[in-house]
Amino acid sequence: MNFCTDCGHTLVVRIPAGDTVSRFVCDECQTVHYQNPKLITGCITHWKGKILLCRRAIEPRVGSWTLPAGYMELGESLEQAALREVREETGAKIRLDSLYSVFDIEHIDHVYIIYRGVMLGPEIVVGSECSEVHLFEPAEIPWDNIYYPAIKELLLRYKDDLASNSFSLYAGTSEKGKIFRLEQGEP
Amino acid sequence: MNFCTDCGHTLVVRIPAGDTVSRFVCDECQTVHYQNPKLITGCITHWKGKILLCRRAIEPRVGSWTLPAGYMELGESLEQAALREVREETGAKIRLDSLYSVFDIEHIDHVYIIYRGVMLGPEIVVGSECSEVHLFEPAEIPWDNIYYPAIKELLLRYKDDLASNSFSLYAGTSEKGKIFRLEQGEP
Repeated sequence: MNFCTDCGHTLVVRIPAGDTVSRFVCDECQTVHYQNPKLITGCITHWKGKILLCRRAIEPRVGSWTLPAGYMELGESLEQAALREVREETGAKIRLDSLYSVFDIEHIDHVYIIYRGVMLGPEIVVGSECSEVHLFEPAEIPWDNIYYPAIKELLLRYKDDLASNSFSLYAGTSEKGKIFRLEQGEP
Repeated sequence: MNFCTDCGHTLVVRIPAGDTVSRFVCDECQTVHYQNPKLITGCITHWKGKILLCRRAIEPRVGSWTLPAGYMELGESLEQAALREVREETGAKIRLDSLYSVFDIEHIDHVYIIYRGVMLGPEIVVGSECSEVHLFEPAEIPWDNIYYPAIKELLLRYKDDLASNSFSLYAGTSEKGKIFRLEQGEP
């Protein structure tokens, strides 16, 4: 961040009055430019016991299999965002069944809100940001080609939950691929 | 948004190549300036059957009672953000017990992630953005002075949950003060 989006003046970094955190501040028009974590929504989707995954055709991690998920946009609800991401990446029409996981990846300032859902029909289409879309039997999931540790961990849990038909919420911080259940007290 | 934060050039609004949404784009340095919903974390905190609320001393809604909650910062986890907000606004040291609600307020592009927790001691301090901090008996909560409809709705649910000692997750979209449980299918 170099220039003020409002007036175009050069920004400085300092702690604004009444604040405790360094921010990008415009000393010309006094605008404080706050920066915040980004929200990603997506859905673990099943169809007749199989799990819907897509393979990335864009950077980063071209070739990695992952969940359909992406940045939430302005002007949509969390649920609409998850439905849109699944539709864009896999062509699938789905129903959301429940909220499945809420976790952050602190070092990249991302927060994930992941639902579980079910396809309403067998149709899938390879989206523009994907090279493949596939319904995997749980035993056939290409674990070695799922780069993102948190997504791999979540899919492993989902596979177990699907086998036992018992789904609980996984909430916490993803650290080295583990999503910890909430247990944090005073830091 | 008028000027590019990277190079200071005037921005235009158009749909970038490969995108489907209008964005602020710099035709000088080609940067696309994405805008995303903001995340707010907070905690419904109890102490010996009472509920911890704070009264806003800053705009908007000066004088309204509400939960300790605020924007998540870069470089912190969801749980750290919730603990920090409670500490800043009320001085309370707390332990988080569980994730309690995940909801969006679509028309202002806010997403709330609210925990429930318990104080570790009786000390409270009025934070710099508050005019009062108080532990309310559930029957004494000043409902008419809680402006935010979603917060009021959530506190009403929490009051019932506290009475029955049974807490479930409330997820969905806040619309006219109602937090709908997830039930949305294809839009």
